[in-house]
Amino acid sequence: MESEIVKNLISLREGQPLVHSITNYVVMNNTANALLAIGASPLMSHAHPEQSDIAKISNALVINIGTLDEYWVNSMLLAIHEAKAAGKPWVLDPVGAGASNFRNEVLHQFLHLGPTVIRGNASEIMAIAKYDVSSKGVDSVHQSAEAIRAATMLSEQTGAVVCISGETDYIVHRDRLMAVHNGHPLMARVTGMGCTATAIIAAFLPFSTGIFDGVCSAMAIMGICGEMAGKLAQGSGSFQMAFYDALYQIDEQQISVYLK
Amino acid sequence: MESEIVKNLISLREGQPLVHSITNYVVMNNTANALLAIGASPLMSHAHPEQSDIAKISNALVINIGTLDEYWVNSMLLAIHEAKAAGKPWVLDPVGAGASNFRNEVLHQFLHLGPTVIRGNASEIMAIAKYDVSSKGVDSVHQSAEAIRAATMLSEQTGAVVCISGETDYIVHRDRLMAVHNGHPLMARVTGMGCTATAIIAAFLPFSTGIFDGVCSAMAIMGICGEMAGKLAQGSGSFQMAFYDALYQIDEQQISVYLK
Amino acid sequence: MESEIVKNLISLREGQPLVHSITNYVVMNNTANALLAIGASPLMSHAHPEQSDIAKISNALVINIGTLDEYWVNSMLLAIHEAKAAGKPWVLDPVGAGASNFRNEVLHQFLHLGPTVIRGNASEIMAIAKYDVSSKGVDSVHQSAEAIRAATMLSEQTGAVVCISGETDYIVHRDRLMAVHNGHPLMARVTGMGCTATAIIAAFLPFSTGIFDGVCSAMAIMGICGEMAGKLAQGSGSFQMAFYDALYQIDEQQISVYLK
Repeated sequence: MESEIVKNLISLREGQPLVHSITNYVVMNNTANALLAIGASPLMSHAHPEQSDIAKISNALVINIGTLDEYWVNSMLLAIHEAKAAGKPWVLDPVGAGASNFRNEVLHQFLHLGPTVIRGNASEIMAIAKYDVSSKGVDSVHQSAEAIRAATMLSEQTGAVVCISGETDYIVHRDRLMAVHNGHPLMARVTGMGCTATAIIAAFLPFSTGIFDGVCSAMAIMGICGEMAGKLAQGSGSFQMAFYDALYQIDEQQISVYLK
Repeated sequence: MESEIVKNLISLREGQPLVHSITNYVVMNNTANALLAIGASPLMSHAHPEQSDIAKISNALVINIGTLDEYWVNSMLLAIHEAKAAGKPWVLDPVGAGASNFRNEVLHQFLHLGPTVIRGNASEIMAIAKYDVSSKGVDSVHQSAEAIRAATMLSEQTGAVVCISGETDYIVHRDRLMAVHNGHPLMARVTGMGCTATAIIAAFLPFSTGIFDGVCSAMAIMGICGEMAGKLAQGSGSFQMAFYDALYQIDEQQISVYLK
Repeated sequence: MESEIVKNLISLREGQPLVHSITNYVVMNNTANALLAIGASPLMSHAHPEQSDIAKISNALVINIGTLDEYWVNSMLLAIHEAKAAGKPWVLDPVGAGASNFRNEVLHQFLHLGPTVIRGNASEIMAIAKYDVSSKGVDSVHQSAEAIRAATMLSEQTGAVVCISGETDYIVHRDRLMAVHNGHPLMARVTGMGCTATAIIAAFLPFSTGIFDGVCSAMAIMGICGEMAGKLAQGSGSFQMAFYDALYQIDEQQISVYLK
């Protein structure tokens, strides 16, 4: 896997994919900075009249429902249709799945539109796979491993590659399963690290050796950068700063040293 | 007071309260990071259809009018009603009170709904207490001390604990008054430190030894973390980073060393 | 020019201008922090009913279309009319010009309202000057120098001072041209550095020795702070932190050392 990750990172930086994100207000700045740091270009747009034009120039789409409302749900539906029509991959981040009926109903619609990838924490993946689960807002209360069965079911239902992020990350596609053991506890103490993972996944899709490999590469990069940042951090503030530096610096050598 | 602050901080970290914030776009990222750093969980949601579900799983609500518009005013009204129905405390941050008639009218409605706590700078507190005051946008042009009479009046009118933040912070509840002398001048040079104080207050309410004590604890923690960050800062950028680190690190020992 | 820049920076810090920004969600936090760091006061407001009141207390207006939608376009139109009626300068940031017909049509309306200053990258300036250009989202694919002819045409059409930011920044007003050679490559790897430049320009306008001088001063300060930050940075995260510190620290001496 190591050589694929290096290859996909090089391809991302050469291709400089334009990632269109319709995401939540809390993390827009984070995800834009993460995309720029790794070598991609961010574009945020939600206006209904421009979704068609934006889909044409973008290489991938992120749909993140963290702070959705009625207008934004329609933006997302338009963007998904346009991305599909233009043959661009799209990644769904079901933030807070299970926290409200409104979110559940919106996600139900989105799942029927065939996301290329779905990334969430264990609670979110279990919630959208219709497991009986009570969500505690946007933070996971389940261990990732317990959600693998839910992810497999969800992958079979939708065709998507499903990524469960947590202490160990699991990437599932039908009968394929990959585990990424990299990461750092402080990643749970900075807002939007999951949303950032989703954006980085989207950046890897256009030029990677395959969807599954692209998701695995993105999660490995996230985890390794988390470990690089964790070595320098005094707390959550310095961790976040060091994490962007790590995304900017990471190369073949660090991947080789850190990858588990 | 020192032992109550330590006790309330420990209770917060054990309880990990879920704080629902309907707040302004500028500070959403800051307040989410501050809540995570101190040990709480942030949740941002403004969609009308989900306010009822969100109130049920939240432990406290923040209403911050920094970048309000008509849809968001209705989100806030719904959220306040649901929080009250569910018996959850809510904190009002009257950002820019006095800067426009629109803000004043919205705040007039909110005050009649009985906030648990109101936190603002001296100009804002004086504006909503109907003092004759000309606001200069969102920054305070009055000294905190001058606003104590206004806060006392406001507390009597609404029943709320009222917090005036500034060089010295004052916490007022009818005839009770507490002053917190901690803090650092760079706190006024980073956006959203007041909004962050409001969010931290909300995080302290669910598991503290009382509303008044919870507000005092939150403001003491803010001020102490400001001083801890100020020792490491070269300017406003490094101050903000060090402030999150301080929220993450702060414990009994630092409270004992710094509390004034 | 050096003495004007110093003079204008001192005037800004003494005047503490209140800068009203209707800007995009991605950069609101950045631009608020940049304004506070340099010594100005930020105010973000987009509610239709308060644009008239806000215009009266503000010293300058920023219109940035990065994440526009129909409501926000109307907010911007109201704010522009009120700023003009109140005699306040306004700066247009045509983020992503050329990326969609919707943006192009909105910009067409705004240009007819006579912005005081227009700041964009080379692609954006060429797009709104009706050059034949295909935009790649929000990042520039043209060298600044090639856009000077477009900027001159745009300045003649609108009367605005036009600023093209890039490796070298060009400030154009009819037959006047100034080049600023300061800056650092990492400025392109942090989101919203262009938007921040626009906000800093707005902060310089109210108290500078003239519009053209104010824009040149702002761009020189941006470039110098970029170089100061670049000396300390390990990547894009530490660069951003150090950039705010530089805005906070910059004075006569640094301007003298760094200005090109």
